[in-house]
Amino acid sequence: MVKSNNTTRNKLIETTGKLLQLHGYSGTGLNEIIKQSGAPKGSLYYHFPEGKEQLAYEAIERTKENVTNFIKDSLARYDDPIEAIQNFIYDSAKRFEADSYFNGVPIANIVLEISKTNDRLRELCRKVFESWHEAFADKLKSGGYSDEESWDLAMTINAMIQGAFVICLTRQDSKPLLVMAEQIPVMLIKGK
Amino acid sequence: MVKSNNTTRNKLIETTGKLLQLHGYSGTGLNEIIKQSGAPKGSLYYHFPEGKEQLAYEAIERTKENVTNFIKDSLARYDDPIEAIQNFIYDSAKRFEADSYFNGVPIANIVLEISKTNDRLRELCRKVFESWHEAFADKLKSGGYSDEESWDLAMTINAMIQGAFVICLTRQDSKPLLVMAEQIPVMLIKGK
Repeated sequence: MVKSNNTTRNKLIETTGKLLQLHGYSGTGLNEIIKQSGAPKGSLYYHFPEGKEQLAYEAIERTKENVTNFIKDSLARYDDPIEAIQNFIYDSAKRFEADSYFNGVPIANIVLEISKTNDRLRELCRKVFESWHEAFADKLKSGGYSDEESWDLAMTINAMIQGAFVICLTRQDSKPLLVMAEQIPVMLIKGK
Repeated sequence: MVKSNNTTRNKLIETTGKLLQLHGYSGTGLNEIIKQSGAPKGSLYYHFPEGKEQLAYEAIERTKENVTNFIKDSLARYDDPIEAIQNFIYDSAKRFEADSYFNGVPIANIVLEISKTNDRLRELCRKVFESWHEAFADKLKSGGYSDEESWDLAMTINAMIQGAFVICLTRQDSKPLLVMAEQIPVMLIKGK
């Protein structure tokens, strides 16, 4: 029973994540989540009594964990922080070109949509970015950057990636991410 | 007659811009545009036979001109490109804190919403960013940076600002923009 409950729960969260990617928060409806997940209506309210907000919360929470781990694993492939971060951005560019950039809730989209109307989800998105910043900052600290430098550079790197991704979408190519990757040694060698 | 037509036309574009800011592209309806602008229904179709897409197009086009001019005017206040760009970002941080950051169509929001579904508006948003990049690049060129360096740095600066703005929204403060401003001399002195 627990297993089947967990399966339904997972399926509902997963479906919510996919629909948020396609239609944003206000464009995602509970009926569509039920339809696409194949879960009975009653099970949605059983698992998520607070409805759509709770489902979105859990889907974002899951994206936070998944992407943080993905960043950590990716950075762990190189000892040198500069090489590690530069290669992380090159890989992001490759994923953009392969149209497989993102597998989860698109945080920037959600932030731009809900930051003024939903404090609970906004606060969660803040924590998502902080978790990513921490992953970059830890790598920088391991390379000898001070705590403050590491945090500022980590935030800068995330801002560059988020912004580059928006510019990539307008151009339908990954050039902006490649340009950002080239700036990394300039920023980090000087910062060190 | 021409004047009154132009007033109605302007009012419709202005109202569309405001509604795009509040509700995004799919959340903005023609009925709401008519209601908020006070324009008669017939005049909307007279001025904008293609309906919402055409209205959004013109509102984005107007944002492109306004923001490009705003960037140029702001950068013209300082001779040195580093000082000029750094102060532009400090001013953006102040505007964010005063909740007057943006007066027009929020381009990043629109891009994230429509990039996969509306090629005409996506292409226009690409031109908006290019126009902003050109404003930054011209300032850098005037300070002795090469053409290629200027374009890459201009794109990086815009990406940093766009990304920082998203992080600002999650935190409800302007710290990310202030952190980006501090990175400008690092990036530009090295790049020169």
